[in-house]
Amino acid sequence: MAEIQIGKYLFERIKQLGIKSVFGVPGDYELVLLDMVPETGLTWRGNPNELIASYAADGYARVNGTAAFVTTFGPGELSAYCGVGGQYTEYVPVVHIVGYPSTQAIKSHAIMHHSLGDGKFGMYHEMTRYITVASTVLEDRHTAAGEIDRVLNLMMYYSRPVYIGVPVNIGTQTIPVTGLQTPLLTALPPNDTEVESKVVRQIIDLLASRTNPVIIVDGGAVRNDVIQESSTLIKLLGRPYFITAMSKGGISERLGFFGGVYGGGASTEGVRTAVEQAGLVLFIGSYPSDFNTGEFTEQIKPTAIIDFQRFTVDILGIKYDVKMKYVLQRLIQDLQTTNTKASQVQAISWNPYPGDQPEVPDKLTQDFLWPALGKYFRPGDYIVAETGTSSFGIPAASLLNVDNVKMYNQTIFGSIGYATGAALGSFIAGKENDSIKRGILITGEGSLQLTVQAFSDLLRHELNTTVFVLNNDGYTIERLIHGMEAAYNKVPDWDYSALCQTFGPSFKSRYYRIATGSELVKLLSDPEFNAADCTQVVELILGKHDAPFSVKLAAQAVENFNKSQSGKVKKI
Amino acid sequence: MAEIQIGKYLFERIKQLGIKSVFGVPGDYELVLLDMVPETGLTWRGNPNELIASYAADGYARVNGTAAFVTTFGPGELSAYCGVGGQYTEYVPVVHIVGYPSTQAIKSHAIMHHSLGDGKFGMYHEMTRYITVASTVLEDRHTAAGEIDRVLNLMMYYSRPVYIGVPVNIGTQTIPVTGLQTPLLTALPPNDTEVESKVVRQIIDLLASRTNPVIIVDGGAVRNDVIQESSTLIKLLGRPYFITAMSKGGISERLGFFGGVYGGGASTEGVRTAVEQAGLVLFIGSYPSDFNTGEFTEQIKPTAIIDFQRFTVDILGIKYDVKMKYVLQRLIQDLQTTNTKASQVQAISWNPYPGDQPEVPDKLTQDFLWPALGKYFRPGDYIVAETGTSSFGIPAASLLNVDNVKMYNQTIFGSIGYATGAALGSFIAGKENDSIKRGILITGEGSLQLTVQAFSDLLRHELNTTVFVLNNDGYTIERLIHGMEAAYNKVPDWDYSALCQTFGPSFKSRYYRIATGSELVKLLSDPEFNAADCTQVVELILGKHDAPFSVKLAAQAVENFNKSQSGKVKKI
Repeated sequence: MAEIQIGKYLFERIKQLGIKSVFGVPGDYELVLLDMVPETGLTWRGNPNELIASYAADGYARVNGTAAFVTTFGPGELSAYCGVGGQYTEYVPVVHIVGYPSTQAIKSHAIMHHSLGDGKFGMYHEMTRYITVASTVLEDRHTAAGEIDRVLNLMMYYSRPVYIGVPVNIGTQTIPVTGLQTPLLTALPPNDTEVESKVVRQIIDLLASRTNPVIIVDGGAVRNDVIQESSTLIKLLGRPYFITAMSKGGISERLGFFGGVYGGGASTEGVRTAVEQAGLVLFIGSYPSDFNTGEFTEQIKPTAIIDFQRFTVDILGIKYDVKMKYVLQRLIQDLQTTNTKASQVQAISWNPYPGDQPEVPDKLTQDFLWPALGKYFRPGDYIVAETGTSSFGIPAASLLNVDNVKMYNQTIFGSIGYATGAALGSFIAGKENDSIKRGILITGEGSLQLTVQAFSDLLRHELNTTVFVLNNDGYTIERLIHGMEAAYNKVPDWDYSALCQTFGPSFKSRYYRIATGSELVKLLSDPEFNAADCTQVVELILGKHDAPFSVKLAAQAVENFNKSQSGKVKKI
Repeated sequence: MAEIQIGKYLFERIKQLGIKSVFGVPGDYELVLLDMVPETGLTWRGNPNELIASYAADGYARVNGTAAFVTTFGPGELSAYCGVGGQYTEYVPVVHIVGYPSTQAIKSHAIMHHSLGDGKFGMYHEMTRYITVASTVLEDRHTAAGEIDRVLNLMMYYSRPVYIGVPVNIGTQTIPVTGLQTPLLTALPPNDTEVESKVVRQIIDLLASRTNPVIIVDGGAVRNDVIQESSTLIKLLGRPYFITAMSKGGISERLGFFGGVYGGGASTEGVRTAVEQAGLVLFIGSYPSDFNTGEFTEQIKPTAIIDFQRFTVDILGIKYDVKMKYVLQRLIQDLQTTNTKASQVQAISWNPYPGDQPEVPDKLTQDFLWPALGKYFRPGDYIVAETGTSSFGIPAASLLNVDNVKMYNQTIFGSIGYATGAALGSFIAGKENDSIKRGILITGEGSLQLTVQAFSDLLRHELNTTVFVLNNDGYTIERLIHGMEAAYNKVPDWDYSALCQTFGPSFKSRYYRIATGSELVKLLSDPEFNAADCTQVVELILGKHDAPFSVKLAAQAVENFNKSQSGKVKKI
């Protein structure tokens, strides 16, 4: 019977999942394993550190569906836990492969480097259980294939990260190759037909009987892969639809009656009224976190909400164990044979982007920046916006005139430094599937400082990234929350014009310093800049206390929440 | 009764421990707490990311005795766990303060940013239990002072890291100030006098009866603060003494018969014979890890070892529950009244640094580099050597002609990237206590890439660091273990001459590129370079496959260990 090395079995499975690149940092417990990456036809994309590797895998999985990265036992994996925590929170399926000491070293309780020095080896695996949905350390070749399959299947089932430890002497042992013929389970099992029918019937009835139904496509719709279904449903119903901070850019804004960005008290008045007075709200993939709900100020009547989640649909407070993906597909099917399309929809009477024609300011302002960026975006753009000012600002960038733009952020977990690494991974994935035209990273100078060495990979993989660095002399979003003049909210001054020279001296790059509105207008219409044929750094000089309107609203809401605690906190 | 805010109580306690600077990264759950840092008379030393903060705290504690750093809940703390794991492994007492969401948010299971999105808040605290000796989240003001004291006392007792979570609404609540009058417990409780006497008597008897006793001062002696006692004992006994890779630079090499660096098969023949044929080995603070023992090739007879540890002393295989610090003090006291000084010590017949007069090579070599660096070191130098080639190479730098040099490494945990952050913290501590003359960081280009943004702090705090960057075109130590020509062992090319311009454009700096032996000789004798009045980067161009002798030995031993598993693995 044909045999295959366990390490190669693992990478073959990874390849079956559609992964082409593997991220990570080499370490001596995993070197033999890394030999097998190219041998399996995968591309190794080593990174400057493990945190960046975990962020890159996150970005790659958001585009590609799933991703893998490899680190060493101990320091390497611990350095990546922040990235894994983010994947867990935001439903990003990534497999973290960890090179372990040999099973003999484990059994003899040897004091190996990278351990805690006490002869124990299980502690990191125990830690990782809190931030993964499945994990294993392969200590026996007879169970290795089963364990790999179990863990990868659970990753796909829950759409969340998993952990596979491979001791240095196990990866090269062989097992029957036949296991690879059983396909991994990448699709969710079907719903109970009876329950699904009941749920769909109820939804159709409610759509027919309730006044002014609306749809909100939240981040969970993006993360649980129901954007296709949501788009079809929106077009079919012809009703107003809304997005949230988390889902911005995840769905086209050109599907009909696009209403704008909803987030409770952080929304504009027109949006808030339309949503909160609707007779029915189809809330697809809702994720009611503080930053995604205007700090828990959403006030949709519970008796008006149909809440669609990965494994459940909740109709006006009654929860059904059905997966939303199949419910939405069935709903679309049934609606196509029913005449429920709104014959008369109240036209949307507000502008989803009320502030998008501001005057060109002398000194560059946030109010001017975001609408201007919206006009700069083109089909095929991949845009990664950093947590903080960027992710709060970008919902104000209108996509009403541009389709086929991809946007990524990390609204819930909110780790600054994420965007630089995630940009790297998502742009690589976009290049591999030939869907990216321009890679755009929008970050603040404070956030950039956490993972700046990722520039090294952006440059050497020739991703021709355009990086907007919002330089407002420190952590402005934190200033607005607390410590307006505090020294701790200042970050060191760097020379952003020297970044590309430092991190990739042999690669072509351009640098722009933009301090006025007209400089920005000129740059964004410059053909050379728009062509983006090399890495471009745009340093945007912004006021120390200037912030997007939504940041000001949110910061105030955060302060109020911390003080009063009387807000409506959504329990889960 | 006078009251004090809980946050200030915590920082007052930290000040009582002798801490002057607090490291960390701001986050919105901790901003109010950060206001209290300067209010308590402490200096805030914000860092570009949390991993660097944790490394800086480690370096600071190695000089200062203890240290503190602050991060936010979730992403911030997770990013620092690698640094905390290293502190745990290497007995570095550091308090990790974590800004938590409010107790109301915790109780209402709100989906706060930085959580895992499931309304839970205890998971990070659970994870940290594996890498700390004590931890608490202050959820009640009535128990806050007691909890802070308990955790800090345990930190000092075990000389290991601890974790204190402070919810955003708790830090400002007040408690009686009187608690601060009870001193924290910074010294270990005394030994049982009877057992201690018995142990000391046995040691004195063995010293008198056994032939050729020797002393090994290992890393545990440095980390458990018995260098003073070890030095006195060495002078008193007049016997040959040895160090290890982990303890290099921790004790003077000028106390009498310095024998060299012991590490089993990774030692020179003379060293190995002297140690392994000694009738008695006083092994102070032994830490028998793979990299510290020539991959478990030490062969000292168990019937010849007195093993001194923080809480135990093991005499020829019988373990006593006595703290080595007090045993050593008592031993010194008793020896001073006994006539045990060796009347005739066999003179050391080998050179501890046999290779330290090599010819000046055309292309710079590792064999030439390390002895040359030894001659460059001066009293008052702080030297931090990175894990890998640097920490394996530096034992070959003789300190026979220089006293009062401090050296730090992370031999056991071995996280690459550590040294850059640890250098920052240790140099700040050295500046604060006015003991540092020159701060020297020795690292590889692969390691530097993990935490390079720490340059930003090295520059802005004007620490005038001299950074030797060993550029050998990748991870050479890993090449020697496995994958000599593998692509994954290559790191991207950076322009190291541009580092200081990027990370601190307004600070004075110098850059040198050294590719030949004579260039190195010239540089190391250059008065301007030696004066080190600004940040200096020295890029050392080294052969891709060149390595210190000890690396070659160790890499071979690692490979053999992984293959055969027949080595003597020290169980604990």
